[in-house]
Amino acid sequence: MTRITLATLNALPADAFEAVIAPLFENAPWVTAGLAAMRPFASLTALHAVAIGRLYAADDAGKHSFLRGHPMLSPAALLRGITADSMAEQRSAGIDGLNAGDAAKLDAANTAYLARFSFPFILAVRDVSVATILTAMQRRSTASPAAELLEALREVEVISWLRLLDRVLPASTGGISTHVLDTVRTGPGAGLEGELWHIPSGAGSSRVAHFVTDKSGRAATMLGDGALMAGIYELRLEVAAYLAGMGVSTLDRSLFPSVSVRFAVMNPEEHFHVLVLLSNGAYTAYRGR
Amino acid sequence: MTRITLATLNALPADAFEAVIAPLFENAPWVTAGLAAMRPFASLTALHAVAIGRLYAADDAGKHSFLRGHPMLSPAALLRGITADSMAEQRSAGIDGLNAGDAAKLDAANTAYLARFSFPFILAVRDVSVATILTAMQRRSTASPAAELLEALREVEVISWLRLLDRVLPASTGGISTHVLDTVRTGPGAGLEGELWHIPSGAGSSRVAHFVTDKSGRAATMLGDGALMAGIYELRLEVAAYLAGMGVSTLDRSLFPSVSVRFAVMNPEEHFHVLVLLSNGAYTAYRGR
Amino acid sequence: MTRITLATLNALPADAFEAVIAPLFENAPWVTAGLAAMRPFASLTALHAVAIGRLYAADDAGKHSFLRGHPMLSPAALLRGITADSMAEQRSAGIDGLNAGDAAKLDAANTAYLARFSFPFILAVRDVSVATILTAMQRRSTASPAAELLEALREVEVISWLRLLDRVLPASTGGISTHVLDTVRTGPGAGLEGELWHIPSGAGSSRVAHFVTDKSGRAATMLGDGALMAGIYELRLEVAAYLAGMGVSTLDRSLFPSVSVRFAVMNPEEHFHVLVLLSNGAYTAYRGR
Amino acid sequence: MTRITLATLNALPADAFEAVIAPLFENAPWVTAGLAAMRPFASLTALHAVAIGRLYAADDAGKHSFLRGHPMLSPAALLRGITADSMAEQRSAGIDGLNAGDAAKLDAANTAYLARFSFPFILAVRDVSVATILTAMQRRSTASPAAELLEALREVEVISWLRLLDRVLPASTGGISTHVLDTVRTGPGAGLEGELWHIPSGAGSSRVAHFVTDKSGRAATMLGDGALMAGIYELRLEVAAYLAGMGVSTLDRSLFPSVSVRFAVMNPEEHFHVLVLLSNGAYTAYRGR
Repeated sequence: MTRITLATLNALPADAFEAVIAPLFENAPWVTAGLAAMRPFASLTALHAVAIGRLYAADDAGKHSFLRGHPMLSPAALLRGITADSMAEQRSAGIDGLNAGDAAKLDAANTAYLARFSFPFILAVRDVSVATILTAMQRRSTASPAAELLEALREVEVISWLRLLDRVLPASTGGISTHVLDTVRTGPGAGLEGELWHIPSGAGSSRVAHFVTDKSGRAATMLGDGALMAGIYELRLEVAAYLAGMGVSTLDRSLFPSVSVRFAVMNPEEHFHVLVLLSNGAYTAYRGR
Repeated sequence: MTRITLATLNALPADAFEAVIAPLFENAPWVTAGLAAMRPFASLTALHAVAIGRLYAADDAGKHSFLRGHPMLSPAALLRGITADSMAEQRSAGIDGLNAGDAAKLDAANTAYLARFSFPFILAVRDVSVATILTAMQRRSTASPAAELLEALREVEVISWLRLLDRVLPASTGGISTHVLDTVRTGPGAGLEGELWHIPSGAGSSRVAHFVTDKSGRAATMLGDGALMAGIYELRLEVAAYLAGMGVSTLDRSLFPSVSVRFAVMNPEEHFHVLVLLSNGAYTAYRGR
Repeated sequence: MTRITLATLNALPADAFEAVIAPLFENAPWVTAGLAAMRPFASLTALHAVAIGRLYAADDAGKHSFLRGHPMLSPAALLRGITADSMAEQRSAGIDGLNAGDAAKLDAANTAYLARFSFPFILAVRDVSVATILTAMQRRSTASPAAELLEALREVEVISWLRLLDRVLPASTGGISTHVLDTVRTGPGAGLEGELWHIPSGAGSSRVAHFVTDKSGRAATMLGDGALMAGIYELRLEVAAYLAGMGVSTLDRSLFPSVSVRFAVMNPEEHFHVLVLLSNGAYTAYRGR
Repeated sequence: MTRITLATLNALPADAFEAVIAPLFENAPWVTAGLAAMRPFASLTALHAVAIGRLYAADDAGKHSFLRGHPMLSPAALLRGITADSMAEQRSAGIDGLNAGDAAKLDAANTAYLARFSFPFILAVRDVSVATILTAMQRRSTASPAAELLEALREVEVISWLRLLDRVLPASTGGISTHVLDTVRTGPGAGLEGELWHIPSGAGSSRVAHFVTDKSGRAATMLGDGALMAGIYELRLEVAAYLAGMGVSTLDRSLFPSVSVRFAVMNPEEHFHVLVLLSNGAYTAYRGR
């Protein structure tokens, strides 16, 4: 799908605007109806938040009705003609290629879930394995109806967000930066070489940045100005070379010659500041604020 | 090089035995002379420790003389006819392919180092980059002579150890195991799927094990019985599927969908127990004992 | 309250046995009725699990009725004559000493909660501050009725467990041990001196053990054989002395001269294995398995 | 000792200025001679760096001579009339109260050390235990002469720095701040109450600040404007109350009800930013940059 810019989206005629965003919510144009009048949106995040707010503002009957508008995760559903978005999502999870045994297993789990909650099992399945789908369904099948209603709506948040990203380019506010702290020397991990890789599902990986941390152990924003995409990235740090420079002998620095931190960008309008606490024999990775 | 077994090594005639191990130490047959009489060795670790013990037992003049028996890390040295082991090691670091500018830079650094310490710069360079060599040399050039003598000998430990592994298969005492602790639920990370990959330098990676952690969060020994090799391994944990099973919604589990811990096995006769402390938004990796 | 042993409890006449355990559950003798016939219990953990299992097995009406048998957390409740256990618990949280303003605030929050869920707000308040009570109530007031029912029952698990511990000495299966890993030297934190302190609420602390970690970095079980109590313990590690022994200069080891890990023992029949990952400039504490 | 301000020090007549700082270096007025001409100093850090730079600029003979000007750590030395500073430092470590057996042990170790290195064993002993002194001496006794010379000078850095702080108030550039990251919710640990305590050696502790972390999980600078002192501080975080507010039930939040991080301020002109990564069942503390 060719993506339009947010500026273009903001400038479309109202009906064209709503035609773009209506498919975000499965068979539920009411969720996005009238949003055209609230333009311009400064970000996809803002637009999405407004739509999600409406969904949560619906009463319980409205929420149930909305959830019942979703197809089952099932090979049979794929044959029955569902929305193009649902079709693509289920295919990315391999639902269309299930053998008869697995399909029967999935259908049985779906039927039991539907009987209990009166709406089909909903999960953001893009690039998720069938095993994960079954594990999640098993777990959620024992939840209380109220808790499960919320859980299903949270998955709708993800599904609709990814569908929005399929159609419109995000605002250029996002980016990735890093900060390495050396907990042996109790200071910044300065002069450390690293790379940032993009790891798309399916196809091959590509290096999108090369950096050397500055005096404070930081590498400045990479993939800013709209270059950040939703998906998986991997930060690679050349720890062995760094430790060699710190005077650590080959024997002592041999455990983690390189450190790779793989993380998922769900919202490319956000900034991802990935921190690594580094010692000779351990490291900790987390997202900073 | 085809490797012989430790049993075969222990059973060789004394002169053949010493012919195998003499090249471990560059131009210094005295380090390993007479070791045949101490056989059988239960492990390469034991054999190597005896040889290294002799090296450290030499007086300062003996140590200096030994270190002076090593070639420079230099394209010129490669032309001059050095031992086959040194040749292979320097080539793996790309010394033979340096352009004229970099070669001159390396030679200048080598000459300055030699002038200060009266022995050539020694580093275990197998699969190490030229940048790392230069960084290490720059750092070590400012050390005191006594400290640098020790540093050089520690590198000899690594060099001779890797040369021994080139010739003889290690005892089958090593292996890799893992243990995942879930710090959100304050308990074992049970039922977590993962894989173990071998990442050889140069060629492609290969999956060597697939596992699911048991009730205590552990995966039992992989690559035991002699299958463990010196080199890089990577542990991959399917965190997203695990968290989905724990009832964590897609939104909350999205940061680290998988966790990869890459680590180096220097001594394949050791056991590597790799632990991961896991929460939704951070993880810590280290080697346990 | 003088506590009896588990052996004594197991040997009591049935009516005496049930008189001991009936007060565990507020105004609900049915939860523990008939448990005498299931004796002997090997542990308090087993006895408690059976009672809790009955509670969860009740239908929703039964659970609601049970929860409605609890008093409000309120100074007014204290005057109205509630069970001795509830009285003591509320006093430990300072409910009896609230000034008029805070009491009114608490009562208003209680009334709103009761109106929404039709049972009073229940929290294990022993030694908890009024601020924490209000924070928890504010948060839980927005939960779904189904989720909040579960939440209240989980608090009952804690309340009844602590009441059981008030009456009967736990089985002697518990204890505390520790393991220190040195992530700078990538090995055990051996020879590290430490102490274990008991930190009772109110009164002064007392040192209950002194230890030196062994070669593997471990200190063996302390407070075994029934000496472990429910409550707060603190592990103190003499890091500065350890690092001095490792050859770290005063300047480099100065950040964390000692490391104290304070943790709560809820179930003294369990073993608490507390691990510390230690480097010069960072440490991580967690409970191992 | 009443401390003067840095402004006062900068304004003193040259001979008075040098009389203040000469005792920083044991029996070695040459280290600080002439520093008066370099005034004003913007900080004690700057003044000290200049003096230390002179010490390191001395040749090896000069350094050895300087180190030989130090007294032994020994009860006998205390009787023989050493400088008042050395006297106070050794007393704080309990050297004056050693029994005959321990004193003999210490003297024997000192004599062996002196024989090997030709200067007495030097350690910054303020508030350090005799056990730590002996451990450090044992370790350092096996170092190379060159390495040990450096080690001794690094201890002199600490000793002279603490003596400077005894005499002059530091510049008001230091302070303590904190930042809590919640790794369960992958975001800031906001609204978390905590306290900062000062833990002087000997006397009782005192609470010096109370704080609640802001939306970003931070607490702003405490003890700024010259209120920070060299010594031990402890940060205490009320984790149980925070988790209760996050909707974590009593059972799940029971492991670490509070987290205390004790750290040493060596240079009160620096800013100490102490970070805590927090999950239900683990935490990591480190100093940020």
